[in-house]
Amino acid sequence: MRHDTTFVDDLGLSAEQVSVTGADREQRSHDWGTDRADGVRPDVVIWPESTDDVATVLRAATERGVPVTPYAAGTSLEGNAVPIDGGISLDMTRMDAVLDVRPDDLQVDVQPGILGDDVNEAVATHGLFLPSMPASGKISTIGGMLANDASGMKTVKYGEVSDWVLELEVVLPTGEVITTGSKAVKTSSGYDLGDLIVGSEGTLGVITRATLQLAGRPRQIRGGRAHFETLDDASEAVFDAVRSGVDVAKIELIDRLSAAVSNAHLDTDLPDVPMVFVEFHADHGIDEEIEFCRSVFEAHGVTRFDVAENDRGMADLWAARRELADALEPYDDDLSPLTPGDVTVPISEYPGLIRYVKELADEEGFLVPCFGHAGDGNLHYSVLVDPDDPDDVAHGEAVSRRIVEYAIDLGGTSTGEHGIGLGKQDYLAAEHGDAAVDAMRSIKRALDPAGIMNPGKVFDGPEP
Amino acid sequence: MRHDTTFVDDLGLSAEQVSVTGADREQRSHDWGTDRADGVRPDVVIWPESTDDVATVLRAATERGVPVTPYAAGTSLEGNAVPIDGGISLDMTRMDAVLDVRPDDLQVDVQPGILGDDVNEAVATHGLFLPSMPASGKISTIGGMLANDASGMKTVKYGEVSDWVLELEVVLPTGEVITTGSKAVKTSSGYDLGDLIVGSEGTLGVITRATLQLAGRPRQIRGGRAHFETLDDASEAVFDAVRSGVDVAKIELIDRLSAAVSNAHLDTDLPDVPMVFVEFHADHGIDEEIEFCRSVFEAHGVTRFDVAENDRGMADLWAARRELADALEPYDDDLSPLTPGDVTVPISEYPGLIRYVKELADEEGFLVPCFGHAGDGNLHYSVLVDPDDPDDVAHGEAVSRRIVEYAIDLGGTSTGEHGIGLGKQDYLAAEHGDAAVDAMRSIKRALDPAGIMNPGKVFDGPEP
Repeated sequence: MRHDTTFVDDLGLSAEQVSVTGADREQRSHDWGTDRADGVRPDVVIWPESTDDVATVLRAATERGVPVTPYAAGTSLEGNAVPIDGGISLDMTRMDAVLDVRPDDLQVDVQPGILGDDVNEAVATHGLFLPSMPASGKISTIGGMLANDASGMKTVKYGEVSDWVLELEVVLPTGEVITTGSKAVKTSSGYDLGDLIVGSEGTLGVITRATLQLAGRPRQIRGGRAHFETLDDASEAVFDAVRSGVDVAKIELIDRLSAAVSNAHLDTDLPDVPMVFVEFHADHGIDEEIEFCRSVFEAHGVTRFDVAENDRGMADLWAARRELADALEPYDDDLSPLTPGDVTVPISEYPGLIRYVKELADEEGFLVPCFGHAGDGNLHYSVLVDPDDPDDVAHGEAVSRRIVEYAIDLGGTSTGEHGIGLGKQDYLAAEHGDAAVDAMRSIKRALDPAGIMNPGKVFDGPEP
Repeated sequence: MRHDTTFVDDLGLSAEQVSVTGADREQRSHDWGTDRADGVRPDVVIWPESTDDVATVLRAATERGVPVTPYAAGTSLEGNAVPIDGGISLDMTRMDAVLDVRPDDLQVDVQPGILGDDVNEAVATHGLFLPSMPASGKISTIGGMLANDASGMKTVKYGEVSDWVLELEVVLPTGEVITTGSKAVKTSSGYDLGDLIVGSEGTLGVITRATLQLAGRPRQIRGGRAHFETLDDASEAVFDAVRSGVDVAKIELIDRLSAAVSNAHLDTDLPDVPMVFVEFHADHGIDEEIEFCRSVFEAHGVTRFDVAENDRGMADLWAARRELADALEPYDDDLSPLTPGDVTVPISEYPGLIRYVKELADEEGFLVPCFGHAGDGNLHYSVLVDPDDPDDVAHGEAVSRRIVEYAIDLGGTSTGEHGIGLGKQDYLAAEHGDAAVDAMRSIKRALDPAGIMNPGKVFDGPEP
């Protein structure tokens, strides 16, 4: 036990809301990309069921200087939700209600522990949807998405998840409850605390309610898949489509290695070529937009461009891309993927970034499957290493780091959607400069004077 | 002289960059909505010509505790750029360059003093435009727009101006220079300092460079004007159009009184009916969208719906709305408009808000022309008062306040686009709660320990 958390027994929570069992603590000591090799576990897990519960816990934790690390689905990749100093793991998954649907305003109020897909299910009867959502929407929570400033395939058309947030209820580390933003679609009143909380990875407070703006489902949706001879052709085609203003709702790229990964484990039968997956959303004129896209792709030597005539056809064409990340682990019995990267660069630099990654992989002798939200300039990649060979792991990690550094040199970012967590702290100052990081720290100190909120994340964490 | 600003002579600025003349100080003691009745003027006006100049001035001002109030075009309405305690007026209008246009990335880098329309002129040859812009774009600066989180007619389709900001260079009050965001279109790296600076009205630092995302100009643009029998029909039609997902780029409402104001002073010949102005932007299918809009308007008893066949026709149809704010002052020789309001409510509450305003105006015996960005739920209104009758002015101000309070009760905001400045400070806590305002103050103290940046704005200013 790193911290005395016996005070939790006096907070008026029910027995079902508190656990110190090894299994519950163990589960919350890792996420999808991070395992605490040092054996650090939270001292206690608490499941708040109301804003008051959250406020009670944070107030008491601030009084006693005990760390609190918010946790939800645990699907983060950079250790964002993993405690590094014990304390309280605040599991938000029981606060998962739809509080209010206001179809006339295209708005929904939800609690943070709700899964993304459950939001869409709750508003579907009104013909509405939350347009931006990570691919993990069926297993990740709205609170986690907002805490890490998540985005996904449809960001190229609809922006990030946070672009659809109007109002947040947030419990500050002191236990004070604030409301940010407004239910009006725009406001210029006071500082924009909502966008500060978004992406702060639970280091400034805990989101307890979100008012989300929705959109009407488009009347026309079509999906397609384009084949190219070379990866360079494919990435240049994506760049040109974005530059030319092709109105795509999704535009995703996968390399030949990723196609092979998919075929090995996802029951797909993809050809051995680089591919671009597209989806179009429109109320009118979707055929014209598809033909416009085809003309751009043809200028880059597209060898085949299939467009689905119905949902089933679209699902078939898209099968590979959607589940790709899950197929990396079992691809090769002897190799394991390092935590996938999510570097993002200005779109004009995207073809050059991909060339760099493939050349580097060849030079250094690694398999590095590449895929990602190409329309945003967002590249996912994972270096496959021999997990039993520490030298190979270290070498692979060095290769991974060079990719991030190259992306930053191109004017890009170390993380388009996964956040800093523990894993990307080395790049924070490289990206923003020391003065900006100091400004972030001063805001952290101002809102969290006792330093209890998810300490060691974003700044000052040990290497994972 | 309220502050000793002789140290400015030692900062290495040229003689043309500094002025203590009465005329220069006088000009920067008011904006379009605020005049310092107490005679407070800045002690000195400085025109920085570089980021270094700004950093030098702020560092020296922080060392000496001398207030610095950024100023640009002076088109703010709430005293946002008006010093309340002398000191330095930092006039940003000489930093008005286009630094770089990157058409491949649909990006432009500009200095803050550039006028909005000049940005569009600089990128027009590439077929690009900055989609969100206040109606004042030909006279107001990008820096001012971002400082006050401005928006405008096209916000209903394209969001606020700040939604098109990727990266900002900002000089903090201490003189430190930071870069926020990224030139990648999305990033989850660190706290979002950019959205914190946006809308902080120059109280947290000075923007010295902005990287703006642009969009391709739509291939189809059509404008139209719809006439209704009653204001209620018109506002219900707008609400229904938004709820139904009609894809409008602009949707503006004006009441009969505003039409009369326009006819009196803008060389228009509008009918004596409430009207809704619309503009459509599309790449395909604009006729279908217009017919969809027409069907919604018909459900609300539209009596006439003219759609322009060309630019000239569109300009004719739209003439009234564009310049309306300028016509309020000369409308009646005996009456003057109070500072226009910009309350904004959830769209479902918009018809009720307008009914309330018109009933209140009738009850209290005031002329209150109503117009605004109806599709956002944003209402502009101005109570016309006899400026020579202090009782009438006070009575009109009380009416204006009741409208703001009513909008906040409806879940809305006191300001959709003009900011808090001096004029709306009474509503900050009502809207956000004391705890949120305290959090804003703590951030202010963290980034501006000497309290030099635009003191008295947003918080703690005297009544204007």
